[in-house]
Amino acid sequence: MIKDAGLIEKPEFRQDIVSGDWILISPSRQKRPGVKGIKHCSRKFQSKTKCPFENPESSPIIWYPKNFKNWFVQAIPNKYPALIFHKICPQQKSINCYSSLDGIGWHEVIITRPHQKTFAEFSLKETETVIRLYQARFLQLKKDACVSYILIFHNFGEKAGASVSHPHSQLIALPIVPPDVQRSLQGSKIYFQKHQKCVHCQILDYERKEKIRIICENEYFIAVNPFAPRVSFETRIYPKKHQPAFEMISPKERFFLAEILQDILKKMKKALQDPDYNFFIHTAPVKPSDFRYYHWHIEILPRTSFWAGLELGTGIELVAVFPEESAKILRSFKT
Amino acid sequence: MIKDAGLIEKPEFRQDIVSGDWILISPSRQKRPGVKGIKHCSRKFQSKTKCPFENPESSPIIWYPKNFKNWFVQAIPNKYPALIFHKICPQQKSINCYSSLDGIGWHEVIITRPHQKTFAEFSLKETETVIRLYQARFLQLKKDACVSYILIFHNFGEKAGASVSHPHSQLIALPIVPPDVQRSLQGSKIYFQKHQKCVHCQILDYERKEKIRIICENEYFIAVNPFAPRVSFETRIYPKKHQPAFEMISPKERFFLAEILQDILKKMKKALQDPDYNFFIHTAPVKPSDFRYYHWHIEILPRTSFWAGLELGTGIELVAVFPEESAKILRSFKT
Repeated sequence: MIKDAGLIEKPEFRQDIVSGDWILISPSRQKRPGVKGIKHCSRKFQSKTKCPFENPESSPIIWYPKNFKNWFVQAIPNKYPALIFHKICPQQKSINCYSSLDGIGWHEVIITRPHQKTFAEFSLKETETVIRLYQARFLQLKKDACVSYILIFHNFGEKAGASVSHPHSQLIALPIVPPDVQRSLQGSKIYFQKHQKCVHCQILDYERKEKIRIICENEYFIAVNPFAPRVSFETRIYPKKHQPAFEMISPKERFFLAEILQDILKKMKKALQDPDYNFFIHTAPVKPSDFRYYHWHIEILPRTSFWAGLELGTGIELVAVFPEESAKILRSFKT
Repeated sequence: MIKDAGLIEKPEFRQDIVSGDWILISPSRQKRPGVKGIKHCSRKFQSKTKCPFENPESSPIIWYPKNFKNWFVQAIPNKYPALIFHKICPQQKSINCYSSLDGIGWHEVIITRPHQKTFAEFSLKETETVIRLYQARFLQLKKDACVSYILIFHNFGEKAGASVSHPHSQLIALPIVPPDVQRSLQGSKIYFQKHQKCVHCQILDYERKEKIRIICENEYFIAVNPFAPRVSFETRIYPKKHQPAFEMISPKERFFLAEILQDILKKMKKALQDPDYNFFIHTAPVKPSDFRYYHWHIEILPRTSFWAGLELGTGIELVAVFPEESAKILRSFKT
């Protein structure tokens, strides 16, 4: 049933092998009236004069590259930070039955130029430059002894939570290892202890044999639609060789990562008519040597639906398109 | 710091005592440009002639009450079901490293009249009738041997995932206990084994002493904004007396549940200018005798923000308003 993409119609639960979570794929949900998501709507940009990223000179800038006049990409502190810096690391506090922790850490914005040029429209060199900045900021912030985990993410479009339309990524350096990452690490560790093999390498071996969920690959990276996706058309990019942490990539790997990320974003733009999307890097906590069983990757989630009561009440994400079908569609779009 | 609602400004991580998950409250996020959510926008309803719930006579109806002409509430099968019925229960299947399960179960829609009358506008008697139908369908569907968990939920507004604007609730009967519920059950069990006390009763005892996160209460129920909310203004309604399962409520309790639910929805409508929202009932799996350590409740989540890369990448939900502050605001709106 899984193999013949054209014939899948019955709903199916699928379990994420790493986290153990279940998702539900239900193709009939595509047919509902008024369902948004996989539909074209023209993209709106805030006017350039009102854009806070068009006059970044007024804010304290962490420049990169250090070219003040003709910059393409730069990192700046988030003006509305979710976390704030403090030189003393936060300690867990307990009040009766409750626990809390001061929100200490780093929250940066990585902005590119020009105002309306989206990630899918960058040149290969520009994409590589953005990834280089991701890596540089990651390597810098992991030196802070209070930082346990760094997440790099990109929200594109209002439905994906971007409050400013000028394309930008964000980096957040947290004092805790977040719950979703914790579960993923735990699942990877248990599998490793049981099978003496990385679970992500095992997945890739199987996917390369099956081929039906693979979209494309190059010398160093492979892009697949996971067996148990969180949203329709979710795509993951993995390094082919086992590698626990993103920040370990070499300049050569960085180039191939830029190439495959570009390829996927361009395919999605064509296949889903310029969707809003999020992508983020899932990598080992800041001490990757302790997490040799982990395998970093990028998750790209187009906003093909809204989370509703079912998802919020159960944690089971309801997906309308089987990954075998979405991979076939994405493969068919040449870039 | 937690007590003085007016002075809280610094971001803070808080841990959900039951699931163990962390959330991050960050008041500066309210100030971002273009932030939607806690803003008035006029509500749009689909036209009555196009509404699929205005001609329900054409679909196979599970009537309740059995009054064909003047019905106020009725249950019908979902025309686009996430799950489908089958008399043979699904078995877990494994293919190489992957697990799946046929999507077998029930998916019903509970619709009310008239076309544009929302839950917050129902009379007390109407609300009680809807809850009576929830309970009746719950008790009926739990007899199916394939059903492990039943979720009743209400999506209100497009941002909350409602594809039809005519107010309606949904009931889904699942062959598995969903991951979020599983974690909540597990947390409740561990606490019970350690302290010989229900963790939810412990929370309520503390909240009633502190008072700052309580919104209102009546003879049988209490409404609080949880210490670690998933969204700003999240509100939970708990039975005051320990009770594992929703379907156990007496007719008298049902009346008081209707009263407090009405009260909260009316307060939210005023305080947040008619927000989109989801609510759902978290209750024990269909055999409540095995889950005596659990304590059912309703969670109401107004859509005050969009989930973005941070939430998707970490599982840490970013909340802009401290519950001590939101409870104070909700309390101030009289209904």
